[in-house]
Amino acid sequence: MCGAPVAESVKTLGDLKGIFRDQAAWQDSDPDREVYRVRWWAPVVSGNEGGLFWGVTILQPGRVGDEYFMTHGHFHANRTRAEYYATVAGIGTLLRMDAERRTWAEDMVPGGLYYIHGEHAHRAVNIGDVPLIFWACWGSDAGYDYGTIQQHGFATSLLERDGKPAIVPHSS
Amino acid sequence: MCGAPVAESVKTLGDLKGIFRDQAAWQDSDPDREVYRVRWWAPVVSGNEGGLFWGVTILQPGRVGDEYFMTHGHFHANRTRAEYYATVAGIGTLLRMDAERRTWAEDMVPGGLYYIHGEHAHRAVNIGDVPLIFWACWGSDAGYDYGTIQQHGFATSLLERDGKPAIVPHSS
Repeated sequence: MCGAPVAESVKTLGDLKGIFRDQAAWQDSDPDREVYRVRWWAPVVSGNEGGLFWGVTILQPGRVGDEYFMTHGHFHANRTRAEYYATVAGIGTLLRMDAERRTWAEDMVPGGLYYIHGEHAHRAVNIGDVPLIFWACWGSDAGYDYGTIQQHGFATSLLERDGKPAIVPHSS
Repeated sequence: MCGAPVAESVKTLGDLKGIFRDQAAWQDSDPDREVYRVRWWAPVVSGNEGGLFWGVTILQPGRVGDEYFMTHGHFHANRTRAEYYATVAGIGTLLRMDAERRTWAEDMVPGGLYYIHGEHAHRAVNIGDVPLIFWACWGSDAGYDYGTIQQHGFATSLLERDGKPAIVPHSS
């Protein structure tokens, strides 16, 4: 992809309103602190049938209260369109959730490859001390539905408990 | 993909009848000699709309006459379905060809990422001395059209000339 146009999007704590459980801790945090950035290559326009996009996400280590830094997370607008994640560096958790809010948590470790079915919302969480870096490949006609997660959240959170990550249902 | 079922396909010289220009050299070669193998993960069945497959190809170094070892090459049956290649190790050439037999040749080097439009046939050629290893990601509904290449070949070959790889039109 030498010379190919690569787009970049940066998400700071201020951009991630309503995502973290501890709203008071989020209010006290530095809104300009970077949580993650995504760089992606879009060789075709968004919506192109059958095309593919490729991106790399760099998710910083950190917490808001006891909750680890994570990506916003989203469903695909087209629920048939799948995605791969491939961990390059760092340690994380991949959360997937279906329409019935059933949730899967998988360890993200370097060399790991993860298949995300089109009907599953997906979010990455950095549970380590170094940036979590992963590649993604998804359909240019997958589209993005961030609203469902913005409104209802994930059913499960990754919280630090006794110095270790714990998977905790969102209602607890 | 720990524990996920991974399929494997091995192609020997004997399997690649009609692909190399020098048929006499091919006849004299060892039909059991491995040219390449592909290992792939198919989390959904072939034909599944919007799903994705992920594979790794290990293409050995070698030549048939003066022509470097290469993959069979194919179009996707569904000409809208794109694919990515990502070089892991080795040195090669990615050949792409459209329906009018216009051909593109790109260097494959470790870390390189290549977008293959759905309407382009694609073939990898190992022009180095070590295995060329690359990942691929493509749609589970892309399908495979090997027949067009089997019948008409690519418009361009990678031949050793004066000890170096040269891109040579197929008619020459």
